[in-house]
Amino acid sequence: MLIGEINKYIDRIKGLDEEAMAWARARQAELAKPPGSLGKLEDISVRLAGIGGGASYDTSKRCVIIMSSDNGVYEEGIAATPQSVTYSQTINFTRGITGVAAIATQFQTDLIIVDVGVNADIDHPLVRDRKIRKSTWNIAKGPAMTYEEAARAILTGVETAVEAAENGYTLIGAGEMGIANTTTSAAVLCALTGVAPGKAAGKGAGLTEGAYRRKIEVVRSALELNKPNPEDPIDVLAKVGGFDIAALAGVFIGGAVMRAPVVIDGFISIVAALVAARLAPTAKEYMFASHASFAQGFVHAAEALGVEPCLNLGMRLGEGSGCPIMFAVIDAACAVMRDMGTFAQAEINDDYVAGIRDAGNFEVK
Amino acid sequence: MLIGEINKYIDRIKGLDEEAMAWARARQAELAKPPGSLGKLEDISVRLAGIGGGASYDTSKRCVIIMSSDNGVYEEGIAATPQSVTYSQTINFTRGITGVAAIATQFQTDLIIVDVGVNADIDHPLVRDRKIRKSTWNIAKGPAMTYEEAARAILTGVETAVEAAENGYTLIGAGEMGIANTTTSAAVLCALTGVAPGKAAGKGAGLTEGAYRRKIEVVRSALELNKPNPEDPIDVLAKVGGFDIAALAGVFIGGAVMRAPVVIDGFISIVAALVAARLAPTAKEYMFASHASFAQGFVHAAEALGVEPCLNLGMRLGEGSGCPIMFAVIDAACAVMRDMGTFAQAEINDDYVAGIRDAGNFEVK
Repeated sequence: MLIGEINKYIDRIKGLDEEAMAWARARQAELAKPPGSLGKLEDISVRLAGIGGGASYDTSKRCVIIMSSDNGVYEEGIAATPQSVTYSQTINFTRGITGVAAIATQFQTDLIIVDVGVNADIDHPLVRDRKIRKSTWNIAKGPAMTYEEAARAILTGVETAVEAAENGYTLIGAGEMGIANTTTSAAVLCALTGVAPGKAAGKGAGLTEGAYRRKIEVVRSALELNKPNPEDPIDVLAKVGGFDIAALAGVFIGGAVMRAPVVIDGFISIVAALVAARLAPTAKEYMFASHASFAQGFVHAAEALGVEPCLNLGMRLGEGSGCPIMFAVIDAACAVMRDMGTFAQAEINDDYVAGIRDAGNFEVK
Repeated sequence: MLIGEINKYIDRIKGLDEEAMAWARARQAELAKPPGSLGKLEDISVRLAGIGGGASYDTSKRCVIIMSSDNGVYEEGIAATPQSVTYSQTINFTRGITGVAAIATQFQTDLIIVDVGVNADIDHPLVRDRKIRKSTWNIAKGPAMTYEEAARAILTGVETAVEAAENGYTLIGAGEMGIANTTTSAAVLCALTGVAPGKAAGKGAGLTEGAYRRKIEVVRSALELNKPNPEDPIDVLAKVGGFDIAALAGVFIGGAVMRAPVVIDGFISIVAALVAARLAPTAKEYMFASHASFAQGFVHAAEALGVEPCLNLGMRLGEGSGCPIMFAVIDAACAVMRDMGTFAQAEINDDYVAGIRDAGNFEVK
C-alpha cells in the first residue's frame, strides 16, 4: 500500500531535458572563455537547463530540509554525544543558533525541520510532527524498524520535498540530525555496496579509539544478524537504517519528482542519496554534491553514487550545514550562464573562435 | 630606490594577533558542535579574528583586483589564445560580461581593473592606467623586464591594494588577465622552487600536444638563458616573470600591510602569492586559497606555499573568477563565528561538554 504510493511518485520522475542541455552546452561553448574552463560551474548550469531553468534558473527561494530522529543503536556506546542532543539541536534549529541555521541565514535559506523519530515529545510550531516512532530499535539486536515503517519514513520525505517545491522552493538541501546516525549510515552503505565496515565507519563526532572499534564491530554484527537484502533498499533501511536516512532518501525522490535540484551534504545525506538512486535511478540527475565530508565512508558513498563534491572544507558537522554554501556555488553557475558575454559580444578574434571549434574540444568537461 | 619603498611597506606588515586568535579558538570550542567539525570554516574565522575582526569580521565591501598585462613570450607560439584577447577582456571586465565579472556581480563584488602592461593603448575611465610598458620582452630570448621595472610593477600592486583597503574594502581577490601568463608563471615557479618545467607547465587554455611540449621547452630554455637567482624573487620576476605576476605579488603584500585578507585564485595568482611570501613571509598569514586550479603547476605551488584550497570546481579560467565564490565561503565562516550558539545557549548536557574538554581535542583542526 505505502510501497504503491512511493512507486507512484517514482513513476512520475522524468530525466533531464536533453534538448535543453544540448542548447546549454552550445551556449557554454559560445561564452567568451576557453572551453570547459569554468569546470563544474559549467556542468551545473547545463544540468539546471536540463531541469528546466533555460539560461536563467531561479535560485531565489531555497531551503534545507532537516530530518531529525533518534537511533536505538545509541545504547551500544558508539556515539560521542548524548542522545538528548538530537532533541536539543532540533529545537535549536528553530532558534537559529546551530551551524546550519547560522549559515542558512547568511545565504537567505529557510530551514524545514521535521521530527521523524526524535526520542522525546516535541510540540513546537516550527518543528513538523511526522514522527514515525520515538527512536528506531537497536540494530545490534534486531531490525531498526518494520518494512512498513521504512516505507512510511520514505514517503514522509517525498511528501516534504514535494510540498516544498509546490511552495516555490527551487533549491533543496538534504540535512539531518540524529545521534548515532553515522553508525546506521555506515551499515546501510555496507549493505548496499559491500564495502567493509572498517572502511564505512568513521570516528563520527569525536570517538575514542576503543569506541571506534566497537562501532565497526556493531556495524559488522548488525549486518550479520539482520541480513539486509542489498537488492531491496527498503529492506536495508528497515534492517540497519534509521528514520532520518529513510526520510532523506524520500527527499531526494520528491525533489526529482518536482524537478528541483537537491543538494547532498555530508555522510548521512549521501548514503540517503544512494538509497534514493537505488530506488529511483533517475533521481540521481537532480542531485548536486556540496562538500567532501571528513567522514571516511563518504568517499566510498560518493564513488558508489558517482558524484564529485564541489567544496573541500573539511566539514563533518552534518545538519546540512554545507548546503547553503553549495547554493552559492549554484548561484555562481547561474550567473555565468545568464550574464557572461559570448565570443561575438566580447569581440574576440574570429580565427580563435573558429580554431576552438576545429579543435573539437567543444565539449563541456 | 623603488626597492626601498617596497621594503618600507614590507616592514609595516605585522603578524596576526595571537591573543585574538586564542580567544577565537576558545569561542569555536564553546560553539555547540563537535570540536573541529566545521573544518576550514573554523580556521578561516580564527584567522579573521587574528586579522582584527573579532567575532564579527565585516565582509560587506569586497573587490577583485585584476592585473592585466601582455607577455613577450607570446611570440613563441605557446598560447592557444591570440594576444589581442588580453586587451579585449580587459575592456570586457568593465562591461560586466567576462567570467569574473558575471560572478562578481552575483556576489556584490567590485572589480578594480589595472593595466600594467597591455600591448595596446587603453583609454578607459574604468581601467586604471599603471602601464609599466606595452608587454614584457620574450623570456625565451632574454629577461622579461629590467629589475627596476619588476620593482615598479610590485609597487603598483602594493599601492593598489593599500588604496583599496583605505577605501574600505575588507576582502580582496587577486585576479589577472594576460595571454601567455601560464608560461611565465611556470617559469617563476620553477625558478623559486626547483620543480621541473614539465611539472610546472600545464596545457593552459587548451594547447595542442605539440604546443604544450614547446611550452615546456620554452620554460626550460628561459631558465637556462636568464639564470634567475632563486634567492632574489625580484630578480626571478625580472628574468622570467611578467608585469601581471609582479603586480599581483604586490597586491598580496599591500593587503597584508593593511591587514586585509587576500584571496588566491588560480595558477598565476598562487605563483604571485609565492613570490610575495618569499619577499615578505608574514604576508602569508593574510592569504586564503579559493579553488584548486585545474592547472597542473597549481598543486606544486600550493605545496610550496603551504595552503589548501577550499573549492574543488575544476576551474582554470583565471581572471580571479573563483574569488567571489571564496568570499561566500568566508561569509559562511563569519556567520558561524558570529551567530552560532554556545553549548550553554544550546542547553546541551554539561557532562558532554566536560567530556569534550577532558578529551583535550579542544584544538581547531
